[in-house]
Parts: sequence; structure tokens; C-alpha cells
Amino acid sequence: MEDTLIREGDNLDITKERRNATFRVKKLAAFIHGGEEIVRRRKEIYDAVEREPRLKNSVPIEFLAREERHEEQARRAVAMTDVATDIIDGSDMFGEGIYYQSLIMGRDLHSLSLHYSMVLPAIQNQADDEQLDEWLGPIISRSLISTYAQTELGHGTNLSKLETTATYDPKTQEFILHSPTITATKWWPGALGKSSNYAIVMAQLYTNGKWHGPHPFFVQLRDAETHMPLKGVTVGDIGPKLGINGSDNGFLRFNNFRIPRKTMFMKNAKVLPDGTYVPPKHAKLGFGAMVFVRSIMIKDQSMQLGSAITIAVRYSAIRRQGEIVPNSGEVQILDYQTQQLRLFPQISRTLAFLFAAYEVKDLYLRVTTQLQEGNTELLPELHGLSSGLKSVVSWETAQGIEQCRLACGGHGYSQASAFPEIYSYAVGGCTYEGENIVMLLQVARQAFLGLVKIVSSIRAGTAKLSLLTSYIAEKQPKTRSKFTCVENVSAEDLIADFEYAAREQIFYAYDLLKKNETLYSTPEEAWNKTGIELCKASRLHVKAFLVRNYFNYVSKCNDSEIRPILDQLGKLYALDGISGGGVWFTRRGYYSDDQMATVRQGIYSLLEKIRPNAVAIVDAFDFSDRELQSVLGRRDGNVYENLLKWAQQNPMNRSEISTAYIKHLKPMMTEGKSKL
Amino acid sequence: MEDTLIREGDNLDITKERRNATFRVKKLAAFIHGGEEIVRRRKEIYDAVEREPRLKNSVPIEFLAREERHEEQARRAVAMTDVATDIIDGSDMFGEGIYYQSLIMGRDLHSLSLHYSMVLPAIQNQADDEQLDEWLGPIISRSLISTYAQTELGHGTNLSKLETTATYDPKTQEFILHSPTITATKWWPGALGKSSNYAIVMAQLYTNGKWHGPHPFFVQLRDAETHMPLKGVTVGDIGPKLGINGSDNGFLRFNNFRIPRKTMFMKNAKVLPDGTYVPPKHAKLGFGAMVFVRSIMIKDQSMQLGSAITIAVRYSAIRRQGEIVPNSGEVQILDYQTQQLRLFPQISRTLAFLFAAYEVKDLYLRVTTQLQEGNTELLPELHGLSSGLKSVVSWETAQGIEQCRLACGGHGYSQASAFPEIYSYAVGGCTYEGENIVMLLQVARQAFLGLVKIVSSIRAGTAKLSLLTSYIAEKQPKTRSKFTCVENVSAEDLIADFEYAAREQIFYAYDLLKKNETLYSTPEEAWNKTGIELCKASRLHVKAFLVRNYFNYVSKCNDSEIRPILDQLGKLYALDGISGGGVWFTRRGYYSDDQMATVRQGIYSLLEKIRPNAVAIVDAFDFSDRELQSVLGRRDGNVYENLLKWAQQNPMNRSEISTAYIKHLKPMMTEGKSKL
Repeated sequence: MEDTLIREGDNLDITKERRNATFRVKKLAAFIHGGEEIVRRRKEIYDAVEREPRLKNSVPIEFLAREERHEEQARRAVAMTDVATDIIDGSDMFGEGIYYQSLIMGRDLHSLSLHYSMVLPAIQNQADDEQLDEWLGPIISRSLISTYAQTELGHGTNLSKLETTATYDPKTQEFILHSPTITATKWWPGALGKSSNYAIVMAQLYTNGKWHGPHPFFVQLRDAETHMPLKGVTVGDIGPKLGINGSDNGFLRFNNFRIPRKTMFMKNAKVLPDGTYVPPKHAKLGFGAMVFVRSIMIKDQSMQLGSAITIAVRYSAIRRQGEIVPNSGEVQILDYQTQQLRLFPQISRTLAFLFAAYEVKDLYLRVTTQLQEGNTELLPELHGLSSGLKSVVSWETAQGIEQCRLACGGHGYSQASAFPEIYSYAVGGCTYEGENIVMLLQVARQAFLGLVKIVSSIRAGTAKLSLLTSYIAEKQPKTRSKFTCVENVSAEDLIADFEYAAREQIFYAYDLLKKNETLYSTPEEAWNKTGIELCKASRLHVKAFLVRNYFNYVSKCNDSEIRPILDQLGKLYALDGISGGGVWFTRRGYYSDDQMATVRQGIYSLLEKIRPNAVAIVDAFDFSDRELQSVLGRRDGNVYENLLKWAQQNPMNRSEISTAYIKHLKPMMTEGKSKL
Repeated sequence: MEDTLIREGDNLDITKERRNATFRVKKLAAFIHGGEEIVRRRKEIYDAVEREPRLKNSVPIEFLAREERHEEQARRAVAMTDVATDIIDGSDMFGEGIYYQSLIMGRDLHSLSLHYSMVLPAIQNQADDEQLDEWLGPIISRSLISTYAQTELGHGTNLSKLETTATYDPKTQEFILHSPTITATKWWPGALGKSSNYAIVMAQLYTNGKWHGPHPFFVQLRDAETHMPLKGVTVGDIGPKLGINGSDNGFLRFNNFRIPRKTMFMKNAKVLPDGTYVPPKHAKLGFGAMVFVRSIMIKDQSMQLGSAITIAVRYSAIRRQGEIVPNSGEVQILDYQTQQLRLFPQISRTLAFLFAAYEVKDLYLRVTTQLQEGNTELLPELHGLSSGLKSVVSWETAQGIEQCRLACGGHGYSQASAFPEIYSYAVGGCTYEGENIVMLLQVARQAFLGLVKIVSSIRAGTAKLSLLTSYIAEKQPKTRSKFTCVENVSAEDLIADFEYAAREQIFYAYDLLKKNETLYSTPEEAWNKTGIELCKASRLHVKAFLVRNYFNYVSKCNDSEIRPILDQLGKLYALDGISGGGVWFTRRGYYSDDQMATVRQGIYSLLEKIRPNAVAIVDAFDFSDRELQSVLGRRDGNVYENLLKWAQQNPMNRSEISTAYIKHLKPMMTEGKSKL
């Protein structure tokens, strides 16, 4: 990152914004990204990527038809993995890895996404030594392409109901893979459609007439030379999606397809040559990988929202529309209070989510260390936190991106803005890796199964809770919020407010659950009838974490230049949450009407304070034009001439005369003339 | 519509749902669509469309690249307008017209969209007799294609700042059209890019050295024979968008382009041969057309949400996942309380928006009649209502559609679901025809300019308000909600609750505005600093209308079979609004905590009541598979086999081997093998 983002030839409005900022962008960037050294490395990686001719992107990806886009993503993926070791520290996936990939691949997946992110770790964790020897080389050398096939057409999160079967035949020492129904068709795996010739396939294991539940197999699907599907395998692309269309998500069916015994992963469970099943020693292995993906997702989602808000703030600084003071010229739309309320909370969210991602990563590393020592103490905590955050963060990210887009009016609807790409990519996060409502119910189930056990201990005053849940057992909770005005409110008070709301709702949902257990015939039905309140409890629990974690994280910053900015954004995050959270904060008079009105006044005052620094703050997110891929969000603010250039390049303008005209409109007009 | 939607071969779950409904679908459909006769006509139109071979759609539109899609839409548009008069009553655009078009064009615009919806009415209203004679024939015979070019690259809603100039040259009796800057480029008009050879162009009129503001001109852009842009005209497509990609929205620049004097619309303002400007007699003509488009939009939005919820409810009836009672099999996901809360309020919204659309249409017709008599009394009311509704309805529709999509999990993300098409099309409504926040501020401005004048009269007890605003002056408003439980609550009480919330917020915003006027140097700045609270006031005002109008409308239904359904849906609409509206209802203790909890319990109890009829209710929206274009939403519920078929047809599966493999993946794998 340069000392300043101001260059000659920039739009004058955006330059003025940068000149008026009260802090140096470089300082805030260093704090946001975890230190000057990391910002320096980002620049180094960026420069290296820019220098590499194979990593150049020739044409805007949004101009490509789906098959062209798929091909372009494959080209980039090969180039990216070819030169990766020269450019980044491959062991730092969470940091350099994500950044490097986002510079090259944009908002899409590619032919090698699952090969690296799921198959490689699965083989490292679940293959026995012999299998490791056989499989690891080809995976790393990329002499095969593999994916992970679990979800089926009729079955998502409920693993136990998968229908694909693997039946062992001791005579030939083979498994017979079979898709007995239409709903057994494997569906969704990335890169399965056209790219992969191998897949880890989850199938119900049957041996010696007995069922042993779902197990993974490493299965060859296509011929190594011709790439044609093997006999007994039907495979293809599942068709266009809302987004992520560079990826060939696929379907897969087996018709009594035979595979050797040693294709079953055998580090844990085993099937012996005679068909004897040897169960795994530990049931919950492989759990960490899913959690890792969700942890990565939280950072990724934060960066998507960060891109969107960078684009929207920069564009709002150069767009002029309407007059606030008559005859004094059109104003920057960033000056409208309504525009500020749409945008600035997204800046706060980006940071809150990013700091949460850092915390989850740390927790993940602690858990990994613990697990190596056989200690599973923190695992449920990590599972709960990552699932809950994944839900709240992906949902608020998606909503935030759409607010950014809508705030840019008509040009936001154009793909030149990049918003359609960002939204359709990011909102997928609400669904994959665990549908959000299912996740929230899991958090609730975990918290409440815990609570069922500990609620009596809480009420007896003997509860022993973790850092994340201890507030629930607060012995003397406040009954009135201490909030008087935005200037005086402390981080502790705001955290206490969110903990109040979460605690109230957790107890409310718990009591309702107990009541419903007396009204419905099974505990499961009572659980279902409490579902909405339980989700709400999980959500508030996560939000309390986000607020607490934000202020904890920024408490590390003692720099008088940037700390006030971080405090303003933190307060905005909290007050916006309280104002939007409504009755969860006013229950039992915890917040009075007057306090609520003062919260809103506090928000308006924060919007005014943040306004002069808004452009500089989003500059500090450190997105290059290459990552943003947005005409509206250009660093230089020269939007209009580049919108025109972008439009003129688009394939519809290759010829002045369209096929639609030649084939349909011209005959119609000719006929029309003959009638005149 | 047949007597029943049940057919042999249907999915058993969906058949069971239909069998268990407590009412006849036909009856509800007749009420929803305005009578049995209208439902019968819908069927007639549907059958006629199905019979016409030129109106057949061969390949799913989502499989087409943009240029193919544009061509297919042009083909359909020509066929649709060729045979329209044989099939529909063309004078009934609001009813038969919309329906007919949606059957054929789907969720997209086309080469003739603006030719009919904007140019034709503009010519009818603003051309003088001579112009009418010259222009009407070619428009109606379709010997030319025209569009409406107003918005510019740098200028949206603020008409007075348009930059395109039309300078009169009395020597040649011509106007010189010119785009003096990049930002003066016309941008966005539908069908401008490639299809149209004429456009109504809005330009700043200069004659004899004086500026007279923006005026419309009917301008030839392309050669009538070759279709090439005329010299001095640069025109093209603006590139891909979030949705509506069958339409060639365009850009347009003029380089001192000369057009004859009589291309200026001269029914109202005139420029005489010597350059003398004759101003129009009435300033506000043409106002009705914009209002008409917004009125149509409200119905269209309601139908988009209706499609989405039809798809989501049907799919939720056939999708089974997870067990509520252990070992008793996976349940229909429609049985989850959380799923019901996502979906059923969307059913209520669809109806509330549709009934509001009917009311706006009636008001529109009354205003039109009044205007012909020179009476403009109701015009501001119509303007306010249609702007406000447009904002609230389009926003809640977009949110509702996304909830429907997310509720369908992974398959919702596939374009096979149709949700991506529905969302990207419908959400455009938040932006076009007046950006939503701008619209809400307009409603506020109008209401508050009114209020400034009448607030003293309200406080003096002498205010005279219209039907839509009289509640604001309620002399003895309730201070406590009468709500005790969902079973006993009346429509009147629920309406009173919404009026309470709206009134409180209107006065709150008004008082804040007055306070801000003392704090800021200009009234405009005070207005800006009250923007958020004013928008909230407008929103609550519109919501009060929606609730009042819903219950007024269903009060016409005395049928004991369907009235209970309509009441349940109305209560759900209101209670969901109260629960989501939070502090706006609890202010000054109007709703207590206990009442709020009871509201939530009421919602849960309504969800249970609606559950058994859910499929039948969405059936009554009367969408055919042709309109839904959704594999998930098929009438027959046979989703899975058809998902597989749909996927297999998609262009990525034309060949087993992709270009990506041949060009990029195969070389990579070959090199990988050489390293092993």
C-alpha cells in the first residue's frame, strides 16, 4: 500500500475526501489486517500476481457466457496453482492463501477448488499409510482432479439418510457402488460435472449383510487417458445457478459400479478382505475440517461485504444528485443522512465480522492443539461459535451487500458495479456448509442441551460456564440499561446491553421449551414448536459475541489517530443493533422509550462523525481495483467514462446490427411498412 | 382452472396436501382474482396461448447466453404482439394485458416493451394533431421501433439537471441535439441499445438564447433501411445487468445532430418557426403516466412474490428432511415451525399487495375521470399512495422472494428453481421508476408539507383530512392496544394498532423536523437531518394503509368456506408486522411485553392453522407451470426426476468433454503424471 491513494487525474471529489481524512489510511489498514508486515506482504503478493503474465485477466468475466467462464476459471486455476509456491506461503491458507486466490479467481470457484480444500485434507486425515502413499502423490502433482461427493438430490444435511450404497463383495474383494433411486443421485459437488476424474464418494456401507452407516470411498470416475466417464458412471453438470457459474457443480450416478476394496478410506473404519467390518476407534474424527471451512467462510464473507461497501462509499462520494441547499449545486449522495444509514453500518459490520474471524481462527488453532493431545474440551465451543457466526454473518453480509447495491441506484443494478457478482456469490454462504436456520437450531440444541443440564445449576448458583456463555449465569444482571448518550456510553455498557437481550431470550426460549414439553406428545415436537424462539436466542447469543469481541479486539489499539475511528464504528455497530433489535432490548423496561430515541439520535450523530472519514476508512480495507472488479468502485473515482468504455466492450456491441433485428424485428417492420 | 389440481401420477405428498384442504381452490381463486369470470378468462387466454405454435418456448431461457436470450425475447415479443388482438382484450392492460404478457415473456423485458408502455401513451398525450397523424400509424403498425430516453449516465431522478441539449436553429428550422459531456450520455432506456430506430429524447430546450427546461423530442436514431445509426448518433447496449438481460438497455450520444422542428412534441409547449417559445398552459400534464406505471408495478410485484411462494410451498410439501419424531421417517420440511415462519407471511403479503394494487387501480380510474373534468383534488393522494406503496411493496417483495429461495436450501440456489430469475427481475423494482428511499422521502415531503399547513389545525381540532390520512388527526387515540389473543382480536383493533404506530412516528418526525429547523441553517438541511425518521414515518403510513385495505377488501367475502382462510392470513400479516415492527408498537406502553409475547404466540398458532391449507392456498393463486418456469414449483410435485432431466439438457452437457479440460486441465494432468 502506497503512502496515499491520491494520484493525478483522479476524480476531484474523491481526492478531496482523501485529503480531508483525519487519519492516515496506512495505519488503519495495518490495524485491520493484523500489522504492517501483513499489509506489506499483501502488496508484495499483489505485485507478484500483477507481474505474472499468466495471471492477467483479459476480458471482464461478466461478459463471458457460462462455458467460456468455466474455461477461463479453469485456465486461471491452473496458472494460480502452477506459480503459487513462488508467491505465497502455502501454509497460511487463512491469510495469504485466501488473499492470493481472491486476487486471481474473483468471486467464483473453479476446477480445483475442492481438490485442495476438501480432498487433500480428507486424504491426509482419513487415509491409511498405504493409501496415503498411493493417493497423495497424484493429488499434489495434479495428475488427477478430485472432488468430494456427499450431498444427494434428495438429501442434504442429514447424512444418515444418504441413499448411495457400497456393498462389499468378498468374492472379488470389491465394493459395488449403486444409486438405487433418482434421489440417490449425487448433486452439487463443485468441479464434479466436467473437471474431476476422481471423487471421494460418501456411501452407505453394507458388508456381510449388515449396514454400517455412511463411509467415504476414493473413486475413479473418468478414464485417465480419454477423460470419458467409466462404464457404470453417469456424470454431468447440474446447470446454471444464481452465481458461482464458473464452477461445474455436478451430478453423479452409479449403476452397480465395482471398485476395489482399498478405495474405502481405512485409517479409521476398515473392511477386511473377508468382509469383516472393523469400526473406528473414535467416532467424531474429521469434525475439524468442517469447522475449518466455516471459519474461513467468516473471513471470506467479511471481505465480500468489505468490497461492496468500498464500492458503494467511493461511488457515493463521486455521484452528485439533488440539492440539499437550493441553487448551490447537486450534492454528493454520501451527504444524505438516509444514504449514510444504508452504508456506514456495513463498514462496522465488515470489521466486526473480520475481528470475529480472527478470534475463530485462534480458537481453531487452540482446539487443533488440544485435539492432538486428545483433549476435546473446547471443541463444542468452537463448533457452536463457528456455526452460529456462519449463520449470522452470512445473512447480514448478504443483506448488507444488497443495501450497498440499492444505495447506488440504477448503476448498482448493472454488472459494471460488481454487486451482482458479489451478492450472488456471497449469499450462497447462507445455504452451503449448513443451511443457516439449521445451523442456528444446532447452536440452540447444543446450548440448550447444555442448558437443560446446567439450568438447575445456574439457578442453584453452582454453574461453571465458559468465557462465551458465562454471561448467561450473571448473578446480578442489570435491570436498566446505563445508556444515556452516545458520547458517554462505554463498551462495557453496550456489551451488557447485548448480553441482557441474549440472556432474556435464552431464558424465555428455555421456559417456552419446558412448557411446550408439557403440551406436545414428544420432546422433539416441543422442540419444533419452540424453533423460532430458539433461533432468536442463538442469533442474540451470536450478536452478543460479535459486540463483545469487537470491543475486545479494538482495545488492543492505543493509537490516538485511529482509535477514535474504531470506537465510532464500534458504537455504530452496537447502536444500530440495539435500534434494529427493538423489543429484545426494551423488555421489562430495560431500555425506555426515551433511551431508544436517544440511541437513534446517537446513530445520527455517529453518521455525521464518520462521514468525513468514510472514503479513507474503506480505503484502509486495502482492496485493489483488481479485486473489486467494479467500475463504480474504482480507486480513481473516474466512473462515468469507464462505464461507457465498459459498455462499449460488451459482446452485444460487437456488431451494430443484432441477430434479433435481422431475424425478427426487420421482418416485422417491413410488414408494418407494407400496411401503412 | 380445473375443479381440482390433482392428477394421476402426481407426487403423493402433494396430492395428500390437496386432499386435506378445507376449502375449494376454485372459490379462493375467484375471490383473489376478482371473480369467477376473470378466472375463466385466464383459463381461456392460457389455452389460446398454449395452442399458438409461435408462442411455444423451446428451451429453458436460463440456458441461453445473453445474445441468444435477447434474440429469443425479440422473437416472442413479435409473436405476442402479432396475435394479441385475437386472444385478449387490449383495453384491459391491468388485467388481461399483464397476464398475457407474463405467460409469454416471463420475467424479462423485450424489444417492444417501451414502444407500447411509454412511447404510445406519450404520443397520444403530448403530440399535436399533425404529429399524431404522422407518428401514430407507424407506431401501431410496428414499422418503426421506439423507446423513451430520459435518464442520463450522470442524472437519474433529477430531471432539471439533464445535460442533453436541443438548441433551435431558426435558419434551418432545426434543433441541434448534443451531448456536451460524458455524463450527458443517455443511459438505461430499454430496447435502446439494438432494437429501436426511434426514441423520445428528453433534452434541455434552448431557443433564441434562452433556456426553457427539459422537453421531449421524437427522434430517428437509425436508418430505416439499413438500421445503422445515423451520422451524429452513437448508440449501443449498456452491458449485462443483475437481471432483465433479454432487454437491450442502451446508451445514446448526440454529436450536433440536427432534427426538424416538428420532432418536438407540440401539444403543450411549442417552438414556432422563428424560434419563439410558447409555454404549455398546464404544467403538470403527463403526470398520470408515471403513476400508472407504478400502479401496474404493484400488481406485478405481488405476482412475483406469489410465484416465489407458490414454488417454495409446493417444494416444501414434497421435500423431506430430518426427523421430528425419531425413527418415524423424515418429515415434509413444511412441518418445521421455522420453515412456516419463513413462508406463510409471504402468502399474506402477496394478497395484501394484490388487494392494494386493486385499490390503487380504482383510485387511478377515479383520478383519470376527475382530471378529464379539470379536477385535480385526488391527484396528490394517488401520487403519494402509489409512490409509497411502490417502495414498501417492492422492498418486501424482494425480501420475501429471497426468503422463499433460502427456504428451499441448495436447490433454491439453482436456476432450475426460477428464484434467481424472479429475484433479479423483481428487485429491479426497488430502483426503477423512482428509487425507493427517494420515493419514501417524496411521500414524507408531500405528507409533511401538508402537515406543516394542517398541523396547527389538527392541534386546534379543525383539520379536514382525506380517507387515507384522517387517522392522523384521531382526537381520542387509544393509549393501550386492545390485543389480548389472536382468537379474539378484531380487524379494527389491528388497524388501530398500525395507525397508532404510524401516527406516533409521524408526530415524532414532525417534531424532530421542527427542532432541527432551529439547529441547522437552512430548512433543507434540517430536512436532510430528519431523513431517516421521515422515511420511517412514510413506511408506517403505508403499512397502516396495507393492513386497513386488506381487511376492507376481505370484508366483501361472506363465504364461510374461504373467509376463515382470508382472516387467518390477514391476522398473520398484521401480527407479523407488529412483531417485526418492535418498538414502534411498544412506545409509551401501547403494547406491553406480555402482549408482545402473546402476539408471537398468536403467530405460532396461525402458522399451525394455515399449515394444512398451505398448498391449496398457493394453488389458488392460479399460476400455471408455464408461468412459474420452475422445476421445484411444478404442479405435479415430481421435482427430482425433472431436476435431473433439466440438468441433463443444459448446454454444459452437450459434450462429455469440456473445452476447459482439453485446453487447460489435460495439459496440467499430463505434466503431473510426468512428475510421478
